[in-house]
Amino acid sequence: MATLTCTASDLAPLLTTATTALNATALSEFLCGRFNTISTKFADTTYAVDNTYLLFSAYLVFAMQLGFAMLCAGSVRAKNTMNIMLTNVLDAAAGALSYYLFGFAFAFGAPSNAFIGRHFFGLRDFPSVSGGDYSFFLYQWAFAIAAAGITSGSIAERTQFVAYLIYSSFLTGFVYPVVSHWFWSADGWASPTRSDNLLFGSGSIDFAGSGVVHMVGGIAGLWGAVIEGPRIGRFDRTGRSVALRGHSASLVVLGTFLLWFGWYGFNPGSFLTILKSYGDGGTYYGQWSAIGRTAVTTTLAGCTAALTTLFSKRLLVGHWNVLDVCNGLLGGFAAITSGCSVVEPWAAIVCGFVAAWVLIGCNKVAEKLKYDDPLEAAQLHGGCGAWGLIFTGLFATEKYVNEVYSGRSGRPYGLFMGGGGRLLAAQIVQILVVAGWVSATMGPLFYGLHKLKLLRISREDETQGMDMTRHGGFAYVYHDEDDPSIKPEFMMRRVEPVNDASPA
Amino acid sequence: MATLTCTASDLAPLLTTATTALNATALSEFLCGRFNTISTKFADTTYAVDNTYLLFSAYLVFAMQLGFAMLCAGSVRAKNTMNIMLTNVLDAAAGALSYYLFGFAFAFGAPSNAFIGRHFFGLRDFPSVSGGDYSFFLYQWAFAIAAAGITSGSIAERTQFVAYLIYSSFLTGFVYPVVSHWFWSADGWASPTRSDNLLFGSGSIDFAGSGVVHMVGGIAGLWGAVIEGPRIGRFDRTGRSVALRGHSASLVVLGTFLLWFGWYGFNPGSFLTILKSYGDGGTYYGQWSAIGRTAVTTTLAGCTAALTTLFSKRLLVGHWNVLDVCNGLLGGFAAITSGCSVVEPWAAIVCGFVAAWVLIGCNKVAEKLKYDDPLEAAQLHGGCGAWGLIFTGLFATEKYVNEVYSGRSGRPYGLFMGGGGRLLAAQIVQILVVAGWVSATMGPLFYGLHKLKLLRISREDETQGMDMTRHGGFAYVYHDEDDPSIKPEFMMRRVEPVNDASPA
Amino acid sequence: MATLTCTASDLAPLLTTATTALNATALSEFLCGRFNTISTKFADTTYAVDNTYLLFSAYLVFAMQLGFAMLCAGSVRAKNTMNIMLTNVLDAAAGALSYYLFGFAFAFGAPSNAFIGRHFFGLRDFPSVSGGDYSFFLYQWAFAIAAAGITSGSIAERTQFVAYLIYSSFLTGFVYPVVSHWFWSADGWASPTRSDNLLFGSGSIDFAGSGVVHMVGGIAGLWGAVIEGPRIGRFDRTGRSVALRGHSASLVVLGTFLLWFGWYGFNPGSFLTILKSYGDGGTYYGQWSAIGRTAVTTTLAGCTAALTTLFSKRLLVGHWNVLDVCNGLLGGFAAITSGCSVVEPWAAIVCGFVAAWVLIGCNKVAEKLKYDDPLEAAQLHGGCGAWGLIFTGLFATEKYVNEVYSGRSGRPYGLFMGGGGRLLAAQIVQILVVAGWVSATMGPLFYGLHKLKLLRISREDETQGMDMTRHGGFAYVYHDEDDPSIKPEFMMRRVEPVNDASPA
Repeated sequence: MATLTCTASDLAPLLTTATTALNATALSEFLCGRFNTISTKFADTTYAVDNTYLLFSAYLVFAMQLGFAMLCAGSVRAKNTMNIMLTNVLDAAAGALSYYLFGFAFAFGAPSNAFIGRHFFGLRDFPSVSGGDYSFFLYQWAFAIAAAGITSGSIAERTQFVAYLIYSSFLTGFVYPVVSHWFWSADGWASPTRSDNLLFGSGSIDFAGSGVVHMVGGIAGLWGAVIEGPRIGRFDRTGRSVALRGHSASLVVLGTFLLWFGWYGFNPGSFLTILKSYGDGGTYYGQWSAIGRTAVTTTLAGCTAALTTLFSKRLLVGHWNVLDVCNGLLGGFAAITSGCSVVEPWAAIVCGFVAAWVLIGCNKVAEKLKYDDPLEAAQLHGGCGAWGLIFTGLFATEKYVNEVYSGRSGRPYGLFMGGGGRLLAAQIVQILVVAGWVSATMGPLFYGLHKLKLLRISREDETQGMDMTRHGGFAYVYHDEDDPSIKPEFMMRRVEPVNDASPA
Repeated sequence: MATLTCTASDLAPLLTTATTALNATALSEFLCGRFNTISTKFADTTYAVDNTYLLFSAYLVFAMQLGFAMLCAGSVRAKNTMNIMLTNVLDAAAGALSYYLFGFAFAFGAPSNAFIGRHFFGLRDFPSVSGGDYSFFLYQWAFAIAAAGITSGSIAERTQFVAYLIYSSFLTGFVYPVVSHWFWSADGWASPTRSDNLLFGSGSIDFAGSGVVHMVGGIAGLWGAVIEGPRIGRFDRTGRSVALRGHSASLVVLGTFLLWFGWYGFNPGSFLTILKSYGDGGTYYGQWSAIGRTAVTTTLAGCTAALTTLFSKRLLVGHWNVLDVCNGLLGGFAAITSGCSVVEPWAAIVCGFVAAWVLIGCNKVAEKLKYDDPLEAAQLHGGCGAWGLIFTGLFATEKYVNEVYSGRSGRPYGLFMGGGGRLLAAQIVQILVVAGWVSATMGPLFYGLHKLKLLRISREDETQGMDMTRHGGFAYVYHDEDDPSIKPEFMMRRVEPVNDASPA
Repeated sequence: MATLTCTASDLAPLLTTATTALNATALSEFLCGRFNTISTKFADTTYAVDNTYLLFSAYLVFAMQLGFAMLCAGSVRAKNTMNIMLTNVLDAAAGALSYYLFGFAFAFGAPSNAFIGRHFFGLRDFPSVSGGDYSFFLYQWAFAIAAAGITSGSIAERTQFVAYLIYSSFLTGFVYPVVSHWFWSADGWASPTRSDNLLFGSGSIDFAGSGVVHMVGGIAGLWGAVIEGPRIGRFDRTGRSVALRGHSASLVVLGTFLLWFGWYGFNPGSFLTILKSYGDGGTYYGQWSAIGRTAVTTTLAGCTAALTTLFSKRLLVGHWNVLDVCNGLLGGFAAITSGCSVVEPWAAIVCGFVAAWVLIGCNKVAEKLKYDDPLEAAQLHGGCGAWGLIFTGLFATEKYVNEVYSGRSGRPYGLFMGGGGRLLAAQIVQILVVAGWVSATMGPLFYGLHKLKLLRISREDETQGMDMTRHGGFAYVYHDEDDPSIKPEFMMRRVEPVNDASPA
C-alpha cells in the first residue's frame, strides 16, 4: 500500500531550488502518489462501510425467517406446530442450496439478457466488479426465502411435506429469481435501472419488493390453497365460516414483532449502499438520509395500518383483537415496501390506511369464496402488495425518484404528485405480469402435485394433526409423561376418545 | 462531485516552467480543489458511518418493545395475555403517529425555548442542519414508546383498553417529550449541552434516560396503579400479600434477554455518533472507545444486580428464583442508564449492587402499602432509575464527563470522585422535577379516567380475564377444540367443576 | 484537530514568487499538514468503522445466549424449565464478573508468555494500543459465556444449582480463557498469529472457535454428564433408550433460529475489523469481502447439515423431525466455525454434510454407552467441533489462509488443497490438547463436586422437578389457579396420582 506520510525533509528538497528549476517530475509523483493513495483509501472505506451496512441488513432480513416461523407456528393449531416450523426451517436451508446453485444466477447473473441471468451458478466467478460481493448474495438469499415463507402460510395444516419440499425449491430456485431479474437486475426488461428502453420510459419501481417478494409469495400461496381446498371444519355444513384459531397468540405477537424488526433490514437495506452523497456532498443529505426516511415511512405505514385495523375491527366485530392488529400491521408493511424510498412520510400514512382496508376487503372476499388461508397470506401479501405497487405509482415524488434512481434525469413519478401516468402504467404492468408468471408456473405445479396425490394429506392425518402422524410427536409436553403416576391416565386420554359412558 | 484524480501529465505542466514562473493560480486551484474534495468526502463518510451506527442502534431499541411485550405477557395470567400484548403493539403503533405529529416537535423542535419545542410537527422542514436526520427521529421514537411500555406493566390486568389508548398517546405525545426536551435538547433548561446558564453550572447528566425514560414510565405507572388499586385477590382478606403468578416464565426470560439485547442500542446508542475523535485523533481513543466502555458498564451493572438479587433472595426467601433475577438484572440496567457513559467499569458494579437492594427495598415498601404492580415497574424503573441519577452524581469521573460533554472545560463531576456537589445537586433536581411533572400530568389524567369510570374494568371482566370478554378469546388453545372426539369432554371439564363423585 | 481547509488566497502566496524563490518551508508545512491531517482522519474513520462492526457483532453473539436459553428450555421437561433458564441467565451474569476480573486477563493480557496472560485484571490499564478496546473485551466475553452455555445443556435436569455456579465461574474465568490464549492471542504457543516459532510452521487455524469454544464447552459437558450419570428413566430396566422429550418444540426452533442469527456475529465477526484492504486496495476485494464469504460458508454448512439430517433421519427413523433438523443445523455451524474464513463455499457444503453424519454417529455411540446428554451438547459441540478442526486442515485454501492470516508468506494450508500435512497436524494437536486440558481441569472439578455430594440432585427433586422444589414453582400456569371454579379439580389431579380404579 502506498503511503500518506509527508515530512518537510522529504518534500522541501523537491521545492527548494536555488540554482535549478524545481523538480517538477519528482514533485508531481510525490503529490499524485498521495492523492491517489487517498483516493484508494476512500474506495476501501466505502467498501467497508457499505458492506457493514449490507451485511447487518441481511442479518435483519434473515431474522424475518424466525419471525415467519413464530407467526406461522402461533397461527396454526397445536397439532400441526412441528410441521409448520419444519417447513420454515427448510425454507431457509433448502433455499440456501437452491439459491446458491441456481437462483442467484438466474436473478443476478451478469451479463445477461432481459429475461433471465446465466452466470454465477454455484457462485462461480463471483464476486466480480459488476456482480456485487458475497454480502449481496447473502442479502438476496434472505429475500428469496422470505417469498417461500409467505407461501407456506397459505397452505398450512393440510399439505404433504414432500409437496412442500418440491414447491419450495422450485419457488426459491426459479420462479422468484426470474421475477427479481426482471425488476431488480440492471438487465431486467422492466427494471428502472436498465440503461435504455425503459418500460414506459420509467420501469417499475418496486424498491424492496411489494411485488417481487410479497405478491410472488402470496399468489403462489393462493394457487396452492385454492387447489387443495379449505381445511376440514373451516366451513361448516351450511357453508358458514368457522374460525380455526391458532394455538398461541404469544407466538403470533412474537413473530409479528420480529418481522417488524427484520423489515428495517428489508426496506432501508434495499439501498444496498449507504455511503453515497446526493449532489455535491458534504451536507447531511445523502443516501444515509434517504435510508433513514425509508425506515420512517416503513414505520408509519405499518403503524397506521395497525391502528386502522384496530378501530375498524372494533366497529365491525366488536372487540379489540391483537391478532387482527398484527395482520393489519404486516399488511401495511407489505404495501409500503414498494414505494418506501420514494414517498414522503405523510404519504406512508395514506398507504397504511388503505392497506388495512384492502386486507379487510380481501378477507371478506375470501370468506365469501370459501377460500381458506390459515395465515391470510394471499390476502395480506398478495392484496396489500398489489396495492403497494399502485400506491407508488400515485405518490412517488419527483425529487426522491430522481435521487434514488439517479443517472437519468426527468423520470416519471407519481400521478397524484403531478408526474403523469407512465409510472402508474408500469406499476400496473408489474402487477399483471407477476400475477401471470406466478400463476403460469406455480399453478400447474400445484395442480400436478394434486393429480399425483402428493399435495394434500389424508383425512386421518389432518384430523389427528401431522405432528403425531408424520413428525414424531406433538410439539408440547407440558405434563411429564415419564411421571408414572400421570402417564397411563394421560396417554390413554389423549389417544383414545373417551367412552361415552365415562362420567368425566 | 469534484475529482481526486491526479496524473503527472496534468500536474507537471503547472510546475515545469522553463521560461515563465510556475502557474501559481492554476496550481492553487488544482491542489485546493483536491483538498476540498477530500474534506467533503470525509464529511460524507462521517454522515454514512454515524447514520449506520444510529440506525442499527434504533433497531435494537425497537427490539426492546418486543422484549417488553414478552416480559409483560409472561408476567400476567394467561387470561390477560392478549390484552397486555395488544397494549404493547399499540404503544409502538399509536406512539409512532403521536410522536410523528406532536411528540418529536415538543421534544426536539429547534430553535425553541427552554421548556418546549415548537418545530418539526409532522416532520415539516425536517431534516435540517441543526435538527438531525430521520435516523434521529426514529431513534427518539423508539425511546418514547419504551416509556409507555413501562407504564403498561404497572396497570396490567385491570385497566380498560380505552383508558390505555388515552394515557398512552398523552404520555408519548406530550408528557415524555417535554421531559426529554428539558434534559436532552440543546435548549432544555436542565440540559448539560445548552450553551450557557447551565443548571448549577452543570446541567443534569442523564445520558440515556434513567430519569427521562425510566422514571417517567415508572411514576406514570405508579399513579395509575395507585388510583386503580390492586387486582382482585392480590391481597387476601387479612391483608396478606398473595402472589398472582404470571403464566409463563419462558416468556419472561425471553423478554428479559431481548431487553438486554436492546439495551446495547439504548445506552451505547445514545452517543448518536461514533466517528468523533477525542483530542487530536489518530489514536484508539475516541467516541468509538467511549461507546465500547458504555456497553461494558451497562453489562457489568446489570450482571452485578442479577447476582446480588440471586443471593439476596436465596437468603431472604429460600429459593433460587429466575424471575427475581430477571427483575434484578433489569433494575441494574435502569440504574446505569443515566451514568453509563461517564463512569468507570468498577463503579458500574457498585451501581448494580445498590440497584438490586433498591429494588428489594421498594418491593418491601410496596407490599407494606398494598401497592400492586404486576411487573414491579414503578419500583424497578422508578426506584432504580432514581438511584441511577444519584449514582451519576456520585461516581461520574472528570475525564469522561469532559470528553462526553465536550466544548466546555471544567465541568462539575461526581462527588465521590472529587468533583464537588454541583452535579449531584442537578441530579436531585432532576429527580424532583421529573417526579413532580409526571405526577402533575399523569395523576390528574388517571384520576379523571377513574371518575369517568373509564379506568378499571368490571369485576366480572377481571375474574374471567379480559381476553375472553374483550379481546375475542384466550391466547392459547393447546387442545384442539375442533376435534370432535375430544371436544365435549374437554369443554365440559374446563367450564364446569367436576362432580365430586367423579372418579377421575 | 488540524484543518483540511484550502483556499487559493492562502496557498497562492506560497507559490507566486515573482522576485524570490518560492517559500519552500511554508509550502511544505502547508502540504504536509494537510496530508498528515488526512492520515489522522483515515485512522479515526477506521477506528469508528471497525468498532461499529465489532460492537454489533458482539451484540449478535450475545443474542446467542438468548438462543441457548430458549433451546435449552424447550429441550428439557416442563418441570425443569425455570432451572435451566436460570443457569443460562447466570452464565451471562456470573461470566461478566469473572471474565472482567480474571478471564480476559488470562486470555488476552499482553504482553504475556505462551501459556497464560497476566495483565488487564479488572480491565486495569485497558484499553491500550496493543490490547484492543472495550469492544474487543465485550466480544470476547460474549464468546466466553457461550462456552459455559454449551456445558449447561449436557448436565441439564439433574445438577444442583450450587454445582452449576461453581463450574460456570471456573470455566468462564479460567479454563476457557487459557485455551483462547493458546490459540487466539498473539502470544499463544499454538496461535497462527504469533511472530515466530509457529506450531509446525503454521499454528492451528481455529478461526471462530470450533475447538476453543465448542469443543471446550462440549467436553466439559461430557465429563459432567458422565460423572452424574443419566437422568432417571432415560434408559429403562432392560437398558433400552427412552426419549425424555423436551416440553416445547417452539422454544427449540426459536432458540435454533436465534443461534443461527447470532452465528453471523460469531463467525464473520471474528475478523474483528472490516476496513482492511487485501493487496493494494481500491478494489472490491478486501476484508469486507472475506467477511461476506465467511457469512456465506457459515450459512451453507449449516443448511447442508440440516438437509442431510432431514433425509438421513427420514430413512433411519421414518419421520421428518424438526428437532433433529435443528440439531443437525447447529452441528453444521459448530463444524464450519473453525475454517469458515479460509475455505471456499463449495467446501462448506462438504463440511456440513459430514457434520450431520458425525452428529448421527456420536448420538449412536452415546446411546450405546448409555450416555445421557439432554441437549446432545457433547456430541454436537464436541463431535462436530472436532470434525471442524480436521476439516480446516483438509480444505483450507492457500489464497484465503494467506489473506486472512497475513504478514507471513507461504503458510501451510489444507491437505486436500495441496498444502501438505502441517496444518492438519496442528489441527490434530489442537484437538488432543483441548480435550486433554478440559478433561484435566473440568473432570476433577466435577468429580470433586460429586464426592462432596454437591453435583447431583436428590431422587425426589429429580422426579418432582427442580422448579417446584428449588426455584419457587413451575414455569407455566396456563389455568388460573385463582379461579375458584377450576382450582380444586385442577390441583387435585396434578398433585395426586390417579386411583387405579379410575375408568378414565
